[in-house]
Amino acid sequence: MKKISVLGSTGSIGTQTLDVVRKHREQFQIEGLAAGSNKDLLLQQVQEFSPRKVSVATKELADSIRHDLPAGTEVYHGHEGLIEIAAATDAELVVTAVVGSLGLSSTLAAINEGKTIGLANKETLVTAGHLVTAQAAAKGVKLLPIDSEHSAIFQCLNGERHEDIERITLTASGGSFRDYTRDQLVNVTVEDALKHPNWSMGAKITIDSATMVNKGLEVIEAHWLYGIPYDNISVLLHPESIIHSFVEFRDSSIIAQLGNPDMRVPIQYALTYPERWSSPAPRLSLAEAGKLHFREMDLERFPCLRLAYECGKMGGTAPTVFNAANEIAVARFLRGEISFLRIEEIIEEVLHRHHNVQEPALETIEENDRIAREIASRL
Amino acid sequence: MKKISVLGSTGSIGTQTLDVVRKHREQFQIEGLAAGSNKDLLLQQVQEFSPRKVSVATKELADSIRHDLPAGTEVYHGHEGLIEIAAATDAELVVTAVVGSLGLSSTLAAINEGKTIGLANKETLVTAGHLVTAQAAAKGVKLLPIDSEHSAIFQCLNGERHEDIERITLTASGGSFRDYTRDQLVNVTVEDALKHPNWSMGAKITIDSATMVNKGLEVIEAHWLYGIPYDNISVLLHPESIIHSFVEFRDSSIIAQLGNPDMRVPIQYALTYPERWSSPAPRLSLAEAGKLHFREMDLERFPCLRLAYECGKMGGTAPTVFNAANEIAVARFLRGEISFLRIEEIIEEVLHRHHNVQEPALETIEENDRIAREIASRL
Repeated sequence: MKKISVLGSTGSIGTQTLDVVRKHREQFQIEGLAAGSNKDLLLQQVQEFSPRKVSVATKELADSIRHDLPAGTEVYHGHEGLIEIAAATDAELVVTAVVGSLGLSSTLAAINEGKTIGLANKETLVTAGHLVTAQAAAKGVKLLPIDSEHSAIFQCLNGERHEDIERITLTASGGSFRDYTRDQLVNVTVEDALKHPNWSMGAKITIDSATMVNKGLEVIEAHWLYGIPYDNISVLLHPESIIHSFVEFRDSSIIAQLGNPDMRVPIQYALTYPERWSSPAPRLSLAEAGKLHFREMDLERFPCLRLAYECGKMGGTAPTVFNAANEIAVARFLRGEISFLRIEEIIEEVLHRHHNVQEPALETIEENDRIAREIASRL
Repeated sequence: MKKISVLGSTGSIGTQTLDVVRKHREQFQIEGLAAGSNKDLLLQQVQEFSPRKVSVATKELADSIRHDLPAGTEVYHGHEGLIEIAAATDAELVVTAVVGSLGLSSTLAAINEGKTIGLANKETLVTAGHLVTAQAAAKGVKLLPIDSEHSAIFQCLNGERHEDIERITLTASGGSFRDYTRDQLVNVTVEDALKHPNWSMGAKITIDSATMVNKGLEVIEAHWLYGIPYDNISVLLHPESIIHSFVEFRDSSIIAQLGNPDMRVPIQYALTYPERWSSPAPRLSLAEAGKLHFREMDLERFPCLRLAYECGKMGGTAPTVFNAANEIAVARFLRGEISFLRIEEIIEEVLHRHHNVQEPALETIEENDRIAREIASRL
């Protein structure tokens, strides 16, 4: 029986995590669930999984659900509540699926308590890879990636030696606009951008796929997760998203992980690692797929990916600023305030105004994150 | 410094094995080399690699090279000579690259001495999988496959648990006639058959690729190497031969091994396992490849593969008879005595006349092999 807490239980990754738990009900015990403001769904989850502790965004929300909770389920709220679910339950494994910078401090709190991390929060490694990996190493804590690309790399590295890795390659579907030229991007709409070819995801990440910012963040995460220099991390366009990513070893062998796009597979792998359990995910038939296509990634066409590599190599607070500027720019695009191509311009401009700080402490990261957001809002 | 003996040193796998050794001269010591009748090449190999012991096919050949050998290199001959190189040197690892049934007894002799096997001889597992795997288990000996498909599966299983395997799939290029209908096969010539699309190999194996016998033998080998039931072993047509084979696990994840066709990669992996060393093999660029294609395997179109599955499931001496009948039929086709489609008819006819013996001893295997060859010669 594996004990688990889920941070962000009512979001996309959170609900799919509970779907995996539901399929293996005898093998898992849910210790804690942290949600934001979707109290109805949280209450359903509490009924079904009987966690000891839950947390919601505010005191008001906590008060409003208190009387609906079964006896024995404690309710917390806010940042402290999130930390409580992350660090103060009997969970061995904490799935960190909250979105945004809240994810970082709660992940660090869980690591500090020696809990294995099922890592789904991007900011954790993008903004504080140096702190998180150092603390995980100090505490002997495993960071198990929940993300199809990083899980793929993680699986390809099973039983292999780090020194034998030559290159890791993240595949990219190319997003909604993969066949558009730069000129064609000038007048694209929010509606156009939200049509992702392979994965059904939230609006923010769908735009990040179209700009290739998402892949850029994944490159930075991969750097920290696997300790690979940026020059040895590639991105390859693969429209079908069937090869989720691969590793080339120094003997020229490539090991790849393949499957249908289904987030429950990498989620479950993090929950059952190093074992693999049965899954209801649809099986991949390569004969049915018939063909797989691959194209060189063009950094001129996708300047945000170039910027992500540059920020990754600079290190320090640069990736934080890249991520913060992008979040604001995407929000503004989704509100119809700016054009699609303005997203990359805003990121680049915010980065130009930023003075990089190496080895930043948590406070420095948070400060630069805030400043970058302010600047990006005004540009 | 790893000590190695090579059985079949002047053949295709043998020379490529020595090519790998040549690239890592400081890491390997050649203890023994067994060749057939290519004495000039063997003498060159002796000059370069200074083995303690060598063996050739006959006493006459042994006598004819004795005076050309450096002091300290002993020469043996015949079946006993082969056993000497397999079992009576200081080698930790023996590459078994002799062709035919000679490979079986020498492999068993090496296993008996506790030597790791770099397995390139097909007959070993096809005809005596039950004996060889039992003896390897009893002696705690590893069988490291030297064959692109089996090496691929072996690599995909790194760090994985046997009970998590759902299915293994061997890819097949389809051979020289993959786009021919059955009708078009009626009048194909030896010359047509020898044009393999991806791999440059000997005549016998090129014909075996065209008939799909080769894939059938690989299915039987895979069954024994990985302990997987035949119903969980698939064959998939993949014309580019870039995905060398793959494993599907019960969580629906697929792990595949990819690379350019270059036998030095699986050979080297067997020599360096569990490490991977640098290799001069050309790197695979999926972007350059552009597309990969996959098609369902059609057992009506390739009846030899169906027969191989049937023989594998029957077990006993059936796979021996399948293999022996095929060898004779292919030799007769190459001599122009029979048509291409007669190969499968001969195999099927010899199998019809055969009374299967379960759990056969070595002598029974050899006897059935001989009888099958006699019948196949006369049909």
